Amino acid sequence: MTEPSAREEIMEATYDALCDRGYSELTARAIADRTTKSKSHLFYHYDSLDDLVVDFIDYLLERFDDWVETTRERPPVERLTAFTDWFLYGPGDDEQVSFHTAMLELRAQAPYNDRYRERLRDGDRRLRAVVEEILEAGIESGQLREHDPERTAALLIAAFDGARVRQLTTGRDAYPAQVREAVVADLLADLVAEGVSLDVEGSDGDA
Amino acid sequence: MTEPSAREEIMEATYDALCDRGYSELTARAIADRTTKSKSHLFYHYDSLDDLVVDFIDYLLERFDDWVETTRERPPVERLTAFTDWFLYGPGDDEQVSFHTAMLELRAQAPYNDRYRERLRDGDRRLRAVVEEILEAGIESGQLREHDPERTAALLIAAFDGARVRQLTTGRDAYPAQVREAVVADLLADLVAEGVSLDVEGSDGDA
Repeated sequence: MTEPSAREEIMEATYDALCDRGYSELTARAIADRTTKSKSHLFYHYDSLDDLVVDFIDYLLERFDDWVETTRERPPVERLTAFTDWFLYGPGDDEQVSFHTAMLELRAQAPYNDRYRERLRDGDRRLRAVVEEILEAGIESGQLREHDPERTAALLIAAFDGARVRQLTTGRDAYPAQVREAVVADLLADLVAEGVSLDVEGSDGDA
Repeated sequence: MTEPSAREEIMEATYDALCDRGYSELTARAIADRTTKSKSHLFYHYDSLDDLVVDFIDYLLERFDDWVETTRERPPVERLTAFTDWFLYGPGDDEQVSFHTAMLELRAQAPYNDRYRERLRDGDRRLRAVVEEILEAGIESGQLREHDPERTAALLIAAFDGARVRQLTTGRDAYPAQVREAVVADLLADLVAEGVSLDVEGSDGDA
C-alpha cells in the first residue's frame, strides 16, 4: 500500500511510541514525532490510527515469518527449543518488557475490535502452523514419538503466552523460566524418542 | 472495612458493570446505578474507584477460595480435572465472556498499577498453592507418579490462562477445549500412575 522505506520508518516509530507510552497513550502525533515526517504524512499513508495499528500487527507477523526462515535448516528438536526461547524471552533487549506491556493492552482491545481480532487470529494460525510443522518433522525424522501435533501445538502456545501474560500482570519474573523447564523437562522429555538429547540449558547454540 | 451486606451489594454491582461496560468504561456512577444506593455512598465505603477495584480483586479471590473448599474432599485426580474445567470454562453462564473480557482489560493495566499487580500476584500464589496441594496429594496417595508439583502447577496455570486469553483475543473458541484435551490426554496421562483412570469427558460427576 505504501513504499517500503516509508512504511518501515512508520512501523519503527510505532514500535518506539508503544514502548515509550503504552497502547492507551498511542497517538498519531507520538508516532509522527518519532519519524522525520509530519503527522499529515502519516494520514497520507493510513486512513486512521486504527488502520496503522492493523498494519503494525501485520508487520510484526512478517518479522515473525523472517525469524522462522532463519531456523528452517535446523533439526526439529533444536528448532522447537529455539521457538520456545523466542516466544518466552524474545530478543531479550531492554525495550522488550515495555513492548509486551503495550501489546497486552492492544490485545485486550481485540474483543471489541474485529480487525485486531482477525489479525491476531491470523497470527495465531501462523504460530501454530510453525509449531505443528516442527512437531511433524520431528515425528517423520524419528526424533519425536507419534503424537497429535495440533493438540501439542495448542498447549505449547497457550502455555508460553500464559507465562508471558502472568509475568507482566503479576510481576513474577520466574514464570517464563518455570514454564520452559516444565515444557522441556516434562512435556518434551515424554515426546522425545529414546536416545535423543534435549538442550535443557536454554542456549540454542547460536551465541 | 465495610459491613458485609453493603460490600456484597457493591461487589455484585461492580461485576455487573464490568460485564455491561468493560473495564475502560467502568465508572463509580455505573456501579452506583446498579445498587440501591447513591454514588456518594460508594465513596463512603471506598476512598477511590481504584480502591474499590482492588477490593473487587480480593472479592474474586475469596470466591475462588470458597469454590476450592467445595472440592476438598474429592480424590486428587478428580479435583485436578474439576480445577481444569473451572479455570477453562468457569460457571459457563452467558455473562462469562463479557466478564473475562473486562478482566483482561483490567489485567492489562496491572503493569502500570502496583496495587493491581500485587493483588494479582497474591491470586497467582493462591491458584498455584491449590494446584500444588492437589498434585502433592496425588503423589502421596499413589494416584500420580513422582514429579515436581511446583513446575507442573506453573505449566498448567500458564496453559489454562493462555488458552482463555487467546480465545478472547483471537476469537478461536476451540482453544480451551484443545488445551484441556492436551493436558488430560498427554500431560496428565503421563503423570498418572498405572491403572488410574482419567475422566477425559469433561464431566466432573456433579451434574
